[in-house]
Amino acid sequence: MARFLRKRVKKRGKPPGTLIYVGDHSVENIKVRLISFTQDNFIEKEIQKIEDCLPESHDEKTVTWIKIEGLSDTKTIREIGEIFDIHNLWLEDVLNTDHRPKMEELEDLVFLILKTVIMNGKKTKDFRLSQVSLFLGNNFVISFEDEPSDLFDTVIQRIKIAKGRIRSSHIDYLFFSLIDTCVDSYYPLVEKIGKAADTLEIRVLKNNSNDITHKIAELKSDLIYLKKSAGPLKESLQKIYKSENSSIHEKTRFYLSDTYDHIVHICDTIDSYKEMLIGLLGIYASQMSHKMNEIMKFLTIFASIFIPLTFIVGIYGMNFKNMPEIDWKWGYYSVWIIMITITSGLLYWFKKKDWL
Amino acid sequence: MARFLRKRVKKRGKPPGTLIYVGDHSVENIKVRLISFTQDNFIEKEIQKIEDCLPESHDEKTVTWIKIEGLSDTKTIREIGEIFDIHNLWLEDVLNTDHRPKMEELEDLVFLILKTVIMNGKKTKDFRLSQVSLFLGNNFVISFEDEPSDLFDTVIQRIKIAKGRIRSSHIDYLFFSLIDTCVDSYYPLVEKIGKAADTLEIRVLKNNSNDITHKIAELKSDLIYLKKSAGPLKESLQKIYKSENSSIHEKTRFYLSDTYDHIVHICDTIDSYKEMLIGLLGIYASQMSHKMNEIMKFLTIFASIFIPLTFIVGIYGMNFKNMPEIDWKWGYYSVWIIMITITSGLLYWFKKKDWL
Amino acid sequence: MARFLRKRVKKRGKPPGTLIYVGDHSVENIKVRLISFTQDNFIEKEIQKIEDCLPESHDEKTVTWIKIEGLSDTKTIREIGEIFDIHNLWLEDVLNTDHRPKMEELEDLVFLILKTVIMNGKKTKDFRLSQVSLFLGNNFVISFEDEPSDLFDTVIQRIKIAKGRIRSSHIDYLFFSLIDTCVDSYYPLVEKIGKAADTLEIRVLKNNSNDITHKIAELKSDLIYLKKSAGPLKESLQKIYKSENSSIHEKTRFYLSDTYDHIVHICDTIDSYKEMLIGLLGIYASQMSHKMNEIMKFLTIFASIFIPLTFIVGIYGMNFKNMPEIDWKWGYYSVWIIMITITSGLLYWFKKKDWL
Amino acid sequence: MARFLRKRVKKRGKPPGTLIYVGDHSVENIKVRLISFTQDNFIEKEIQKIEDCLPESHDEKTVTWIKIEGLSDTKTIREIGEIFDIHNLWLEDVLNTDHRPKMEELEDLVFLILKTVIMNGKKTKDFRLSQVSLFLGNNFVISFEDEPSDLFDTVIQRIKIAKGRIRSSHIDYLFFSLIDTCVDSYYPLVEKIGKAADTLEIRVLKNNSNDITHKIAELKSDLIYLKKSAGPLKESLQKIYKSENSSIHEKTRFYLSDTYDHIVHICDTIDSYKEMLIGLLGIYASQMSHKMNEIMKFLTIFASIFIPLTFIVGIYGMNFKNMPEIDWKWGYYSVWIIMITITSGLLYWFKKKDWL
Amino acid sequence: MARFLRKRVKKRGKPPGTLIYVGDHSVENIKVRLISFTQDNFIEKEIQKIEDCLPESHDEKTVTWIKIEGLSDTKTIREIGEIFDIHNLWLEDVLNTDHRPKMEELEDLVFLILKTVIMNGKKTKDFRLSQVSLFLGNNFVISFEDEPSDLFDTVIQRIKIAKGRIRSSHIDYLFFSLIDTCVDSYYPLVEKIGKAADTLEIRVLKNNSNDITHKIAELKSDLIYLKKSAGPLKESLQKIYKSENSSIHEKTRFYLSDTYDHIVHICDTIDSYKEMLIGLLGIYASQMSHKMNEIMKFLTIFASIFIPLTFIVGIYGMNFKNMPEIDWKWGYYSVWIIMITITSGLLYWFKKKDWL
Repeated sequence: MARFLRKRVKKRGKPPGTLIYVGDHSVENIKVRLISFTQDNFIEKEIQKIEDCLPESHDEKTVTWIKIEGLSDTKTIREIGEIFDIHNLWLEDVLNTDHRPKMEELEDLVFLILKTVIMNGKKTKDFRLSQVSLFLGNNFVISFEDEPSDLFDTVIQRIKIAKGRIRSSHIDYLFFSLIDTCVDSYYPLVEKIGKAADTLEIRVLKNNSNDITHKIAELKSDLIYLKKSAGPLKESLQKIYKSENSSIHEKTRFYLSDTYDHIVHICDTIDSYKEMLIGLLGIYASQMSHKMNEIMKFLTIFASIFIPLTFIVGIYGMNFKNMPEIDWKWGYYSVWIIMITITSGLLYWFKKKDWL
Repeated sequence: MARFLRKRVKKRGKPPGTLIYVGDHSVENIKVRLISFTQDNFIEKEIQKIEDCLPESHDEKTVTWIKIEGLSDTKTIREIGEIFDIHNLWLEDVLNTDHRPKMEELEDLVFLILKTVIMNGKKTKDFRLSQVSLFLGNNFVISFEDEPSDLFDTVIQRIKIAKGRIRSSHIDYLFFSLIDTCVDSYYPLVEKIGKAADTLEIRVLKNNSNDITHKIAELKSDLIYLKKSAGPLKESLQKIYKSENSSIHEKTRFYLSDTYDHIVHICDTIDSYKEMLIGLLGIYASQMSHKMNEIMKFLTIFASIFIPLTFIVGIYGMNFKNMPEIDWKWGYYSVWIIMITITSGLLYWFKKKDWL
Repeated sequence: MARFLRKRVKKRGKPPGTLIYVGDHSVENIKVRLISFTQDNFIEKEIQKIEDCLPESHDEKTVTWIKIEGLSDTKTIREIGEIFDIHNLWLEDVLNTDHRPKMEELEDLVFLILKTVIMNGKKTKDFRLSQVSLFLGNNFVISFEDEPSDLFDTVIQRIKIAKGRIRSSHIDYLFFSLIDTCVDSYYPLVEKIGKAADTLEIRVLKNNSNDITHKIAELKSDLIYLKKSAGPLKESLQKIYKSENSSIHEKTRFYLSDTYDHIVHICDTIDSYKEMLIGLLGIYASQMSHKMNEIMKFLTIFASIFIPLTFIVGIYGMNFKNMPEIDWKWGYYSVWIIMITITSGLLYWFKKKDWL
Repeated sequence: MARFLRKRVKKRGKPPGTLIYVGDHSVENIKVRLISFTQDNFIEKEIQKIEDCLPESHDEKTVTWIKIEGLSDTKTIREIGEIFDIHNLWLEDVLNTDHRPKMEELEDLVFLILKTVIMNGKKTKDFRLSQVSLFLGNNFVISFEDEPSDLFDTVIQRIKIAKGRIRSSHIDYLFFSLIDTCVDSYYPLVEKIGKAADTLEIRVLKNNSNDITHKIAELKSDLIYLKKSAGPLKESLQKIYKSENSSIHEKTRFYLSDTYDHIVHICDTIDSYKEMLIGLLGIYASQMSHKMNEIMKFLTIFASIFIPLTFIVGIYGMNFKNMPEIDWKWGYYSVWIIMITITSGLLYWFKKKDWL
Repeated sequence: MARFLRKRVKKRGKPPGTLIYVGDHSVENIKVRLISFTQDNFIEKEIQKIEDCLPESHDEKTVTWIKIEGLSDTKTIREIGEIFDIHNLWLEDVLNTDHRPKMEELEDLVFLILKTVIMNGKKTKDFRLSQVSLFLGNNFVISFEDEPSDLFDTVIQRIKIAKGRIRSSHIDYLFFSLIDTCVDSYYPLVEKIGKAADTLEIRVLKNNSNDITHKIAELKSDLIYLKKSAGPLKESLQKIYKSENSSIHEKTRFYLSDTYDHIVHICDTIDSYKEMLIGLLGIYASQMSHKMNEIMKFLTIFASIFIPLTFIVGIYGMNFKNMPEIDWKWGYYSVWIIMITITSGLLYWFKKKDWL
């Protein structure tokens, strides 16, 4: 796993607010994109000097979205923080890509950390949680992503072609759209894990190959990991849509409550599957135990029947000079009769004990 | 199972509020029925053009119920939404037949999603949860069902023959009647599962056929599934009967509190049976373990007695030329005496160890 | 068990408020007794016509208690409801003898459903929960019992002989007395189950007869069943003694808080015993496992010693013509030496492995 | 155990407030001691007539402590109740030595029931919980103990020699001192149980004598029993130090919050040890299972090697006339070679399977 | 463990507020250091007479930090308490090095007890929790440490070289810095335990050496122990940053909320690892059970095949005079055919039963 805590150590002894990137992605140049639009207008450009994003972003009518991809260049991050007046502690949280989802607000600035699911393969376990930090100000949204991804491409597309409400709405609707996109990224993974769990259930009810416990353990640990970010995200979203921050309009609040519904659904589903997997483990254990009983019963019956017979034939294998039975005419046949009697008796007894 | 999450994926990337039906029932034509009545008057008709339901529905004195069966025709749904001024996000939830039960209100419109139990066979597992969405407005109720069913037939019948309070009451009493009908649909299933659980209990206390763990697992998973919709339904009902919405009169609130009692009872019963099934699994495991002990004890006693005897008779089966005992007159009989002594000693020892 | 849900089904499709008796006791004639008293006066009579209980009951100074035994005659119940102005939904709850304990109030009428324990034998499992419904009005108390019982005899006796505060107090003190009597009926059963649990504990710590798991399961299921009615009863009592209903005086509230203490104690005790029984099951499992180890160790040691010996004597039982050892003078004795050496070696090794 | 519920039954049918002693200690004469002091003055005497404690106790300046030892003489208890105006229900609770800890207040009288630990031996299990009831009035404290004990001797000593704040403080500081003494009586026991648990842990990690499960069970049941009185005591103390009763001064409140800290610590420690013991049981089970595997592996390897060998030598022990191998010159040696080959093969196979 | 409760006993019978050191470190002389600074000024000196720290500490503009290392000299502690007007009960808590983390405030004095992690070796288990007590007054901070350590060296360093905000901020920022340093001390340990847990997980999924249960038990008990101090610390921090104490400025509150985030993260991580370890134990048990099944299956198959064969060859080892088969020409070969047939039959049967 090694998933729960990453490289915190290198920060020890530094004063709080020191900007240190703790993630794994050392993108050489971080990319800063400026997307700004009004009802009629759409500009998207990559920014070289941070100061360039300043003028537009403080214009009244335009909606401005600063999209930062890559967090390894702390200098640029600090500059952005200065321009938009973001507290150093928050920038520190942005750079700490291992932060738990949270929502905070200070005056008219809303700060949200959340995790998005990134699949890098077809298998259930080929996923990663990537941290996204969002700031909502008066007329700007800033998004920080740990790595370049196509996560927000559909949102940009929707703005470009002016589809949906996004172009005609306030800045908070853009903020909501970004959150919604992140939350939606959980669905395919949860569904994939769900399918894997269903497959495991069918396998448990049919056979018992060894790696089932491992598979169950893996899925369970995936679910615990997912829940660890979905749980706080749920709380954060509730905090946002209940927040009385003036940046968030009543209409958007309604949309946010819908997104909140989604994350509640995701959390419920994760819990359901976890409960189901724990149940599976119990059934598997019970099956094991039953199988063991079957095996032991078989061995016991088999051994119990042949052990006395072997003893009897052993008796008449002895070489004593003086063994009257040996010389009897019907001795051999009597032994057979005795052995058949014993066997029948034992079989009857096992039958009565319900072992057969 | 595959029950917890359905086809969410196809919605990814679409803007929120996009109407997409995610259910399994692709009814060709959705059926829209208009039931409208006053104290003295009763009209029931099928509507072809959605606009037809408009005039009556906005009349002051008449109670109007628009009953929509089938959700596959998103165009019609959208039209209804426009006529009755329902938010697109809510329509999206109506179409998402995998939504968890919830209650929301906006101005004087109350929106409730709940699940009804549909049995399609005699067996415990032959059930399905079907989503019903209800809207309560000033003088209308709209119900959306995923599939045509006879669920609300008794309500219509009661209105027709003017039995009960339903005809003389306000629109909210109709709303309550629909909820009550849905909640009541849980009882037969819970009772059926309860009977199955009781049968399993008796079987566990009597014998141990293999599929008991599977049966227990199945019932438990049914209960988890049921609880997953009954739990949020409980919350929603509490929210409704505590809501201060003006559409709901004090009298109806009293009735709703009764329905709330029912769903609390259902949830309690589900929990009781789940606890009982978990207990059963424990007893079963304990029985298995006890049985195993019995089997092993038997094998051990049996083997322990015959193994040394077989060894002894083996000794005198050796062909050494120089074996004095062989030639003794009473050698054979001495061996018998030795063997009987050993057997008695072991039996006594087992007795003392409480293994017999 | 079959205890958790009874005969709800026959009510489906009926409008709410329909009076249907779902219990098991079809008493032919329900008995209605009127007990009415003032400080100086005591009347107890059986009532034939329901109207007879009317005049006294609305007199100001007298305390009136209508005691109904048997619920099968819905007509009489309805009449009582009309006279005392009780809502049909509440009467429905009275008749539904499977209702969970609850407390509700409407204007100055307090409605309480609770369960009383009825023992019909000496054994732990010979108990039944019988539903009692109580109404507290301005100057009357109505009690509904599912079956004739001597439950309230001590209360009537106390009124008759004017012992205790009951005669000189307000109507709410009578109400309290009835509740207190019902709550007290839990003690003997809980104590009985407790003793049975203590006995089981001693048995577990001493021996391991098979039916211990069943006994534990039985007691645990009894406790779950009891808790299911004691839990909501606790909540209801808290609701009553915190209620601001004017019918309940400060003094009585003090008494009610004492009864609340009792039910809290009962709930705690039930939980303690449940925890203890679950612990017992764990110890039993652990003992089983230990015993199994002992048995297997014994078998293994025994078999491991004799199996090689039997093999050795088998060798010299072979009939090969050319077997030099056979003809050696000391062959037989050498074999004995070899066998003793092997046995000693194995015993030493087992000793070292701590298996002896 | 028999610890959770004692002799409640004999109270059934009696009206509430009936004084009946349910404890085990039938002290012939209950002892009533009067300790009264001012800053400069100290009186301690045994009282014969209850009325004697009256005059001093209602004097303004003196702090009066009535210390009652023994509860079997209900008459005296009732007299005390009348003098100090204590409600009969509270006296009933005082006499019910099985009552759970609770705090109640009525006007300016504070009533607290708590349990003190009494050790009557060196062993962990040689402890008893004894009930202490305290009343705090305007200028008096009354303490009821079930049996004579030296519990409060240190407090009396401190008053006598005027050590600590106790002499110069208000009556509530005396009240606090008594509570503090009772709470402190838990420490030695919890520490003793803790040491026993630590010893068990070491034993589990070293060997596996049978009675470890019993010891664990015993300790766990002790902890459950302790928690059952420490838990409600915690709540009661919180209630006291948050109470706005005028009898309790701000300064004493500060001391009470310290005592509250202690009981929180005790509860935490009890929980920690319980969790640790449950963990131990798991480890023990796991060890058992591992040991079992070892034993079975040994038996299987041993038996699997010798069983075929025994079969082979059995073949050539047959007496058939026509058995060519018997007469071969190297027959006997070939059998040895075959047997060695088989043994080597099996050993190699076991090695590969990681069973050796 | 012996970690949960230390040497409380020696305090019994003493009046509350008696200063007794219960820790393990009997440092001969406790060291009192005075660090006092303004924006421009920095003084650090060791103090011999406690009165020396008085004048500066009550100066208005200077920030004063009294750093006490070692708690064994109760006299000095009492003097400090008198100078800074600290309640005896709090000093008692400072000396009780086994106290659970807590936060209390009285007027403008804030008192915080917390635990810091001290590693004294490379291994996971080489850690100790050391108690740190902090007082925040108007213009002073007092810190008590149980033993001399380099814990706060980085803070002193930062003050000396005037790095970070610490020099220019209020006294509460110093207070925060000390807390932050203590909280940060948890990270390396949690990370180390995490790595150990990850290693165990890999080992469980690969092999099954015996001491894995012990390792898991050890780590789990470490986590329980850590959680026991991290949990209350979390609550205390929340209490501080929500406290309305005037000593704590809005800006510092923001920093404290960051530290609160850290401790929440630590608690979450501890819980995650605990859950993971419990899961591991389950998987290990399941593996054990599976392995046992494999072993038993092998033994059963092996024994079941050879036991009847051994019996058959035993038959013809009997020495009866009259045994017709013995003399048959093809007798020996027929026996072989019979034995091969039996073996094939059994193997086929095992195959069909899925045991091979």
